[in-house]
Amino acid sequence: MKKLILAATILAASLPAAAQFQKAEDAIKYRQSAMTLMGAHFGRLAGMAQGRIAFDAKAAADNATVLSALVFLPFGAYGAGTDKGAPTRVKPEIWSNAAGFKTRSDEMQAAVAKLDAAARSGNLDALKAAVGPVGDSCKGCHDDFRNEKYSN
Amino acid sequence: MKKLILAATILAASLPAAAQFQKAEDAIKYRQSAMTLMGAHFGRLAGMAQGRIAFDAKAAADNATVLSALVFLPFGAYGAGTDKGAPTRVKPEIWSNAAGFKTRSDEMQAAVAKLDAAARSGNLDALKAAVGPVGDSCKGCHDDFRNEKYSN
Repeated sequence: MKKLILAATILAASLPAAAQFQKAEDAIKYRQSAMTLMGAHFGRLAGMAQGRIAFDAKAAADNATVLSALVFLPFGAYGAGTDKGAPTRVKPEIWSNAAGFKTRSDEMQAAVAKLDAAARSGNLDALKAAVGPVGDSCKGCHDDFRNEKYSN
Repeated sequence: MKKLILAATILAASLPAAAQFQKAEDAIKYRQSAMTLMGAHFGRLAGMAQGRIAFDAKAAADNATVLSALVFLPFGAYGAGTDKGAPTRVKPEIWSNAAGFKTRSDEMQAAVAKLDAAARSGNLDALKAAVGPVGDSCKGCHDDFRNEKYSN
């Protein structure tokens, strides 16, 4: 197996969204892609916590590391005007309640940081305890800021 | 600005693809999402190198760091049987010429590692020199292993 140790500096929303994406469509595709990857890696951790996937301490740590890097990506891609341009499930509350959206994103990042620490501990019980709050933060944010169906 | 320093261990293809994805569709969506994010972050670096985006040493370093984490993700998602299940542009050569595909992925990862070092040097000329080989590695792999049009 090939390993790469990175001393990684991840900056949340390091550039204004307007500078990052030329078209709203690009921002929508970007944030949806980040969510897809986050879901895949969190799904593996949740699967181990729930016994659907055999627990493997190294794989858990690796998945948590990737998730920790991804968790900062989507939130720079909700700039003004990105409510249309491609099919999206965003609710207008992302912009009308920007403080609430920020709180949700902070909650998720904090929960993922704890999950990452738990996964790196190599302890399955710690992993189990840390998965729930991340799942709750996903669901809470989706309930508040994501529609059931795609619009546009 | 909010910064997070991560000591990140990224493992390429840490789990067999069969264990990672329950359905071929999931693998296809995952690898396409990873490519979308890689394209976005590389695009920002290329934009700075080409003068389309104002050079910002810190933003360059951040984008290169994210790209360095992403560059290992897609290649675990080309397991056998993932040539169909969702629209995809994969060529069958990914499987019939697996060694060639591995060479291309190694080339890209090496080129991205050099780009990351260049971006972190804060030197625009170094960035300019390192962007080209990454772009060449993208194109070379796409020429060999990606169709023009989606199939399925």
